[in-house]
Amino acid sequence: MTNDDGITAPGIRHLIAFAKEIGDLIVVAPDSPQSGMGHAITIDSTLHLEKLTIDKTAPEQKEYSCSGTPADCVKIALQEILDRKPDLCISGINHGSNASINVIYSGTMSAAIEAGIEGIPAIGFSLCDFSWDANFTAAKPFIQKIIRQALEKGIPTGVVLNVNIPKTNEIKGIKIARQAKGNWKEKFDKRTSPMGKEYYWLTGVFDVQDKGEDTDQWALDHNYISLVPTQFDLTAHHAIQNINTWSLNE
Amino acid sequence: MTNDDGITAPGIRHLIAFAKEIGDLIVVAPDSPQSGMGHAITIDSTLHLEKLTIDKTAPEQKEYSCSGTPADCVKIALQEILDRKPDLCISGINHGSNASINVIYSGTMSAAIEAGIEGIPAIGFSLCDFSWDANFTAAKPFIQKIIRQALEKGIPTGVVLNVNIPKTNEIKGIKIARQAKGNWKEKFDKRTSPMGKEYYWLTGVFDVQDKGEDTDQWALDHNYISLVPTQFDLTAHHAIQNINTWSLNE
Repeated sequence: MTNDDGITAPGIRHLIAFAKEIGDLIVVAPDSPQSGMGHAITIDSTLHLEKLTIDKTAPEQKEYSCSGTPADCVKIALQEILDRKPDLCISGINHGSNASINVIYSGTMSAAIEAGIEGIPAIGFSLCDFSWDANFTAAKPFIQKIIRQALEKGIPTGVVLNVNIPKTNEIKGIKIARQAKGNWKEKFDKRTSPMGKEYYWLTGVFDVQDKGEDTDQWALDHNYISLVPTQFDLTAHHAIQNINTWSLNE
Repeated sequence: MTNDDGITAPGIRHLIAFAKEIGDLIVVAPDSPQSGMGHAITIDSTLHLEKLTIDKTAPEQKEYSCSGTPADCVKIALQEILDRKPDLCISGINHGSNASINVIYSGTMSAAIEAGIEGIPAIGFSLCDFSWDANFTAAKPFIQKIIRQALEKGIPTGVVLNVNIPKTNEIKGIKIARQAKGNWKEKFDKRTSPMGKEYYWLTGVFDVQDKGEDTDQWALDHNYISLVPTQFDLTAHHAIQNINTWSLNE
């Protein structure tokens, strides 16, 4: 189990509590928040790994913090901590949505995708609530159901699951969905430092340009949990024929 | 134009020289190397932007360095520098392959994908040679041909091009390809610091498990340039039917 908000974040603490009712867990998660890290890996710097106990009431729980990115956590867990491939890699619960194009920027999903690349069934969970006090309780039976079904039925090869949970206490159910088309409308907040140097903060609002009722965003907007099967073969197979009409080799 | 090796890297300096024969350029690239950054963005820190002249013989060339990631460069260029959407976003030339699964970790490709998300036709170029003294000359006519064809024919919506160039002076041509199935076999080099603390370096060898002759890796191994149409809708549409058989809502 890993995440991108750091090993002490409420999201992963809740996910540990939900998942330990189903199986044995080993946690390897970042020692600090790694939101927006996408699929970054640490190649020009060193990595530190520390065994620790976060929950004093469960000292038997095996946990390690890692100084790297979520993808680093998965890599180092497989090579340095686990003595076999796990049956499942679970990442989250992220504080904030990873629906629609957010999957691209998501450290939570990059950890799940890294596991998928290594041939491990993997799920990323995110709750559409940035608050550190977010309420994870309503999601518990649904998260457990998804984990149990993934273990029982198996996730197709080359696919990882991107699960997003709406911010509501009245979750209506789970919808298998596709990634909604959307993007961020950025706005840079330009400021001047005390030393007179200009700098920027990246801000923005998320904009969905997809009216489909089969998307993750539609499901979330209607109080359903969205489950998008997500792949890491990025080939746009449908475009190959088009580009084969270009004059590239004459 | 942007890249992930930083604005002074030989790869982008060559790409500038090749592309300015075709059109007007504005360069916005990281102020330091950003390899392996994936689709990271800067959300918990400030960004700096600096107008500068790298090539004293071409002071008319508009160039800016940015303290952020490649994806940040594209976002800030669109909001703070350009007065219209560019006709094309070009990223690279990366020092090192972004073929096969490397596309996932690639800062070069994340910049191209960021532009694609914003509706801008985009291409990432990479040379399979990590050396700072790599020879980019053999690639020039092929790169120019791809840029000209992209401008003339148009890149399909939702698709960006991942172009990889073999390390050879005898390039045989360009192959439209799919992403080869492959992954890194990691090995962590464990060391002890002068203070007695253990730390790790991430190392590994790349392993392709794909015998297909229609892949990017096959093309490169046979001295062809590979061109993979790449998408940022990660939905595994083929898996939706399978997962719809799961018992999730009863």
